[in-house]
Amino acid sequence: MRSIVEIIAAKRDGHTLPDDEIRWLIAEYSADRLPDYQMSALAMAIFFRGLDHRETGTWTEAMLRSGVVLDLSDLGAGRVDKHSTGGVGDKISLPLAPAAAACGCIVPMVSGRGLGHTGGTLDKLEAIPGYRTDLDVAAFRAVLADVGCSIIGQTGEVAPADKRLYALRDVTGTVESIPLITASIMSKKLAEGIEGLVLDVKVGGAAFMKNVEDARRLAEAMVQVGEGMGKRVIAFLTRMEEPLGQMIGNACEVAESIEVLGGGGPSDVRELVVTLGGAMVELARGVSADEGAARVAQALDDGSALQRWRRMVAHHGGDDSRLPAPTGETAILASRDGYVTAIDGLEIGLSAVALGAGRTRADQAVDPVVGVRIDAPRGAKVAAGGRLATVLHGRGGAPPAEVTRRIADAFRVGSTQPEPAPLVIERIG
Amino acid sequence: MRSIVEIIAAKRDGHTLPDDEIRWLIAEYSADRLPDYQMSALAMAIFFRGLDHRETGTWTEAMLRSGVVLDLSDLGAGRVDKHSTGGVGDKISLPLAPAAAACGCIVPMVSGRGLGHTGGTLDKLEAIPGYRTDLDVAAFRAVLADVGCSIIGQTGEVAPADKRLYALRDVTGTVESIPLITASIMSKKLAEGIEGLVLDVKVGGAAFMKNVEDARRLAEAMVQVGEGMGKRVIAFLTRMEEPLGQMIGNACEVAESIEVLGGGGPSDVRELVVTLGGAMVELARGVSADEGAARVAQALDDGSALQRWRRMVAHHGGDDSRLPAPTGETAILASRDGYVTAIDGLEIGLSAVALGAGRTRADQAVDPVVGVRIDAPRGAKVAAGGRLATVLHGRGGAPPAEVTRRIADAFRVGSTQPEPAPLVIERIG
Repeated sequence: MRSIVEIIAAKRDGHTLPDDEIRWLIAEYSADRLPDYQMSALAMAIFFRGLDHRETGTWTEAMLRSGVVLDLSDLGAGRVDKHSTGGVGDKISLPLAPAAAACGCIVPMVSGRGLGHTGGTLDKLEAIPGYRTDLDVAAFRAVLADVGCSIIGQTGEVAPADKRLYALRDVTGTVESIPLITASIMSKKLAEGIEGLVLDVKVGGAAFMKNVEDARRLAEAMVQVGEGMGKRVIAFLTRMEEPLGQMIGNACEVAESIEVLGGGGPSDVRELVVTLGGAMVELARGVSADEGAARVAQALDDGSALQRWRRMVAHHGGDDSRLPAPTGETAILASRDGYVTAIDGLEIGLSAVALGAGRTRADQAVDPVVGVRIDAPRGAKVAAGGRLATVLHGRGGAPPAEVTRRIADAFRVGSTQPEPAPLVIERIG
Repeated sequence: MRSIVEIIAAKRDGHTLPDDEIRWLIAEYSADRLPDYQMSALAMAIFFRGLDHRETGTWTEAMLRSGVVLDLSDLGAGRVDKHSTGGVGDKISLPLAPAAAACGCIVPMVSGRGLGHTGGTLDKLEAIPGYRTDLDVAAFRAVLADVGCSIIGQTGEVAPADKRLYALRDVTGTVESIPLITASIMSKKLAEGIEGLVLDVKVGGAAFMKNVEDARRLAEAMVQVGEGMGKRVIAFLTRMEEPLGQMIGNACEVAESIEVLGGGGPSDVRELVVTLGGAMVELARGVSADEGAARVAQALDDGSALQRWRRMVAHHGGDDSRLPAPTGETAILASRDGYVTAIDGLEIGLSAVALGAGRTRADQAVDPVVGVRIDAPRGAKVAAGGRLATVLHGRGGAPPAEVTRRIADAFRVGSTQPEPAPLVIERIG
């Protein structure tokens, strides 16, 4: 086998790396025998030269094998999950897991916290008084066996090589590499003991992937890696310009999710739950995508999804009848008549973080109550002085003027009503 | 100013870096406040994206200012030096410095040791019994004032930022970057207190630069950086396929250099001394290149260059009448009649290192005696069983069979005499 310097130079010069070298690299890095300065140089070479599908698969599997991999096969067939690359107002997991469970899926969902401008599922769940996200594996299994879904934080050391590499990439300008993103996501999701995975790859100004081409490359890479490891994977590219739904925050997103679980809520949130959930049912139950979607819609409308949610929350010790309420609100008003032609979701997300709904460092606590409500979504008609959005006050009270200005500036109001923009752009796999 | 991660990402995405950011980077790295893993990622981004002339100049000057810069202006005008990018059998500095001094140049030459397949001037000089390369600055000045030339190792901390960065590049696959090579060479040479510099950029299979285009880019970058810092710089691209001269080793290269200093020696070594020395005289004395070359040739032929050499060696405590001699020799013979059409200098250089004439790690000692003599240079007619080369035995006695085979395999013998190949390919600046 070649030395690490020869391996770096080979990738730098555009060659593919053999499997044994990739496995050796990840093992050495996990064991703290390969210094960060060599891994960061290699990561930058990969940024420029890429990894092909075989290399990405081997890299992913090596990171997966660096840690704990759950075996949930005793729960029976139909174990599926969903992963989103992150957006603003993206509370989809909350209604989705119970809805899919109501349709016969087993959904062992291991989620993360928010970082950057996007929220995190764990932070949202923890806005429910009593909800514990730190169940051990035995308790997780018990909830899954009884309810069919459970949403928790990481159990044990899942893909520690990825954890270390991600932290390094974050400080060396090497995050934006599609094969490294693929390996990072898939090594963690495939540790969940699932048979199938639905991916929601967000595209747009408020997403990590800004254009359809990059998003498609990422989606294809993830599908191929998953299938190479014997999993069924379906990916969707979905629009992420405006926030999803009306609510951006934690408790307020839980409340909105409960509306969707009861057959109501914003149409875009419902559409995405039905589409992604339909694909989960397709994977788990072997029905068509249309049939899967119809069953999910039915579960939202007949109360069975909400019932699963209530059982899951109760198993986790939570009480969603006691969601914390805002202490006040501040209205953001339109300065002219017209139609809302665009809302900059990235700015709304960053504003919510600035208010305390998210975090800029991993060790920060979030405010469960503070949030932003979109009162005039894209396409809505507004009058000068009419309400565009509302800041829901949390611990900090009324928002600073620069944040309300930032939220107001995120709205574009024009004279012509914009064409509706499709939410689901493309399905892959 | 941006954060280091933003700076890395900017270079990664092909943007140029402002001067203040480059100076900050080098200062932080020198002060051990910028971690190696960030610098190596940046170096890899520079490998792919390059540095333009302004950036390279700023980077060079920042590294130069990180350490000691000699002021030798009290020695008067005409302070020039030569730097070679490294070849096999490249003993040019030994005859060149005294020959240029004999023509009125002041040559404060700070040299390095061999590493990889190329030899080092300091290792060669230390084959002379008693020669001290570690003079302090006061002694160095005294030799220069009396003789006009002195060849020593690094005095004090010259460009410590370069030293640290070079060590990092060596283990992260980022050596082969023309702007980083430029900055590394020039930050060290410009610390010598010289007014002019002649560069010998080797091109070919036994050189660092394998093709004329890369060599030209490196030469042009070095000329521009030097001129940007107020120095006059002339670069030559010269052929480095076969070894230079007959001798590859340490004591044997000193002996060959003394032959050249006395007006004899191999024609290629003499030609390069006359050409490079002519350019040094041109820079130092303001004469034409042809006039400079004629004066150097005259100094070799009239004994004045040899006299300068003797005085320099004596000042350094050396006695070149007691050069250590080989303990035996092994002949490498031709297996067929014909002409030597090519000699692979890289293989000869690596064979000499394997015998102990060079080092593969910086902490190794070299064997001053062991060497390889080329008996049948390119173009020579040989008979089957005739001598191609000779291994001069050192501490290790007779060479292992794999080394003699490797040396034999480095010779190509064909039926047709090859065309002579010009030694000097191009002059730049």
